[in-house]
Amino acid sequence: MDYELFEAGEVELQSGEVLPRAQLAYKVHGRLNHDRSNVVLYPTRYSGKHRDNEFLIGSGMALDPAKYFIVVPNLLGNGVSSSPTNTPPPCDRGNFPHVTIWDNVTLQRRLLEEEFGIERLALAVGWSMGGQQAYQWAARYPDAVERLAPICSSARTSPHNYVFLEGMKAALTADAAFANGGYEEPPIQGLRAMGRAWAGWATSQAWFRQGMYREMGYDTVDDFLVVYWEGLFLERDANNLLALLWTWEHADISANGIYNGDFERGLTSITARAIVMPGATDLYFHVDDSAYEVEHMPRAQLRPIPSVWGHYAGGGRDPAATKFIDSALHELLAS
Amino acid sequence: MDYELFEAGEVELQSGEVLPRAQLAYKVHGRLNHDRSNVVLYPTRYSGKHRDNEFLIGSGMALDPAKYFIVVPNLLGNGVSSSPTNTPPPCDRGNFPHVTIWDNVTLQRRLLEEEFGIERLALAVGWSMGGQQAYQWAARYPDAVERLAPICSSARTSPHNYVFLEGMKAALTADAAFANGGYEEPPIQGLRAMGRAWAGWATSQAWFRQGMYREMGYDTVDDFLVVYWEGLFLERDANNLLALLWTWEHADISANGIYNGDFERGLTSITARAIVMPGATDLYFHVDDSAYEVEHMPRAQLRPIPSVWGHYAGGGRDPAATKFIDSALHELLAS
Repeated sequence: MDYELFEAGEVELQSGEVLPRAQLAYKVHGRLNHDRSNVVLYPTRYSGKHRDNEFLIGSGMALDPAKYFIVVPNLLGNGVSSSPTNTPPPCDRGNFPHVTIWDNVTLQRRLLEEEFGIERLALAVGWSMGGQQAYQWAARYPDAVERLAPICSSARTSPHNYVFLEGMKAALTADAAFANGGYEEPPIQGLRAMGRAWAGWATSQAWFRQGMYREMGYDTVDDFLVVYWEGLFLERDANNLLALLWTWEHADISANGIYNGDFERGLTSITARAIVMPGATDLYFHVDDSAYEVEHMPRAQLRPIPSVWGHYAGGGRDPAATKFIDSALHELLAS
Repeated sequence: MDYELFEAGEVELQSGEVLPRAQLAYKVHGRLNHDRSNVVLYPTRYSGKHRDNEFLIGSGMALDPAKYFIVVPNLLGNGVSSSPTNTPPPCDRGNFPHVTIWDNVTLQRRLLEEEFGIERLALAVGWSMGGQQAYQWAARYPDAVERLAPICSSARTSPHNYVFLEGMKAALTADAAFANGGYEEPPIQGLRAMGRAWAGWATSQAWFRQGMYREMGYDTVDDFLVVYWEGLFLERDANNLLALLWTWEHADISANGIYNGDFERGLTSITARAIVMPGATDLYFHVDDSAYEVEHMPRAQLRPIPSVWGHYAGGGRDPAATKFIDSALHELLAS
């Protein structure tokens, strides 16, 4: 096992539902320094696991374990932290409770305090849903987050992003084998359909025009659809996918008792020094939404990632984009 | 019946398959003049019928029936022309043959010649797949097409557009009730899923950000998804949708014995005076693909429609976009 478990006990969620025996799985890189001032929180993205974050961590990189204590918590629902697949009845499978980004942050805060006595973050960073967690940290604990770096992300899921996700959910659940989450055998056709339906969204029109799937090792678009996209989703569990999708759809830094839905006030309250990095060609976390957010954040800078990789620009597959992000993180951490 | 039928008999298709008793449904507006010089060909779009084209036809508009003889042929597969739903066995339903844009143009050419003695078009115009037919006319019969106006369209379906369509097909066919086209009852869940999955693509991120669904009469995004998008696809037949989708996926002005796949030569051969109008925010017929096409066309001008309505900018729902298109058509027809 290449990760640790934080046992949180019975947790009341933002929805009022209860998650019994909550477990937050996490991985740490590097060492906590004496005054606990070198903490980087770097949560996972949709369906990602702690390992998937490692492309931004390394010697000489901004997130250098020789300098920083990097904590990578797994999202609830991702199959490693408490999830439909690993929670005992009655909260298993299709009965897993609704979990928000806020709920994830609550557990992450407890993990850092109870296990390590950490009260402040030098940096909160993440890609996609990972960035949504970083945003929620910065809006909820403005004094505890010194720096913020959301990558291809948003402080609130936009209406278009929500509609995109509803389409993915519909493709998965069109398969009657899903059985409202009660399947014994995976809903194969639904998983395949979700993968194929996602394929057009993840990168960009220019990416396909330039035949970049060949750079990923696929001779044809059809190979790419079958081997990469169907394959990716066939490895995943339908209930986990839908639990995480619900979390994503409801992401909003202001949907809580602090801001009561006042999104702009939530943004204005983020005092962390921030570099916000949308993907210039991202189709579901749109650059214009990031621009709007930055306008309302007192110490934020907008820095779009110049890449045809769309949303995937933040995911480590485009070396130039990864370098761009790493440079920005170097700069941010030096400030 | 508000349309006419051209009975084409047994037709050999580009694929080598045969369509027995082919019928091309069409509607005409206006009168053919003495020297047959006032013909506008204006084919239908995906799942559209002749009636859906009428927003660009009218007194005082560029397509004025008092001046022009406007012929609106229905796409094969649209449920009015020969389609899976109206063709007798053995070519009915899931056994309907594969039809290309070229095949549609072949029948349209015959209709014009055999019924009306028409040899030349003053204008070929269309939205989306309608524009793909117009493009094929101009590339196949350069001397017979004086003017060309593709709206939110392309001379060849781009790889990204193909991937988008594969996602829509996967959502529909994830429903086992589809039964490989042999359903007795419609695959309701699949049709709904296809509608929901299409929803994020048809307009644009900005359109949702601005809450434009309210302008269409829907209070919430969820109402819009259920009432508009599910409703739209529940009215359609799955086999017809897939027959048309195949046609769309394989659209390419150069996939024939004239150009043998040399796309650029196909474009260069289009001598029609053209105004190419992509939607500035269209997510599946991307403005950059139109720009590439225009670069290779000797007498073409690129004129993106400034609208947040994405692909729908060309469909008549955005009055400003419709006015923009109508103005361009006025200018083109006056030249």
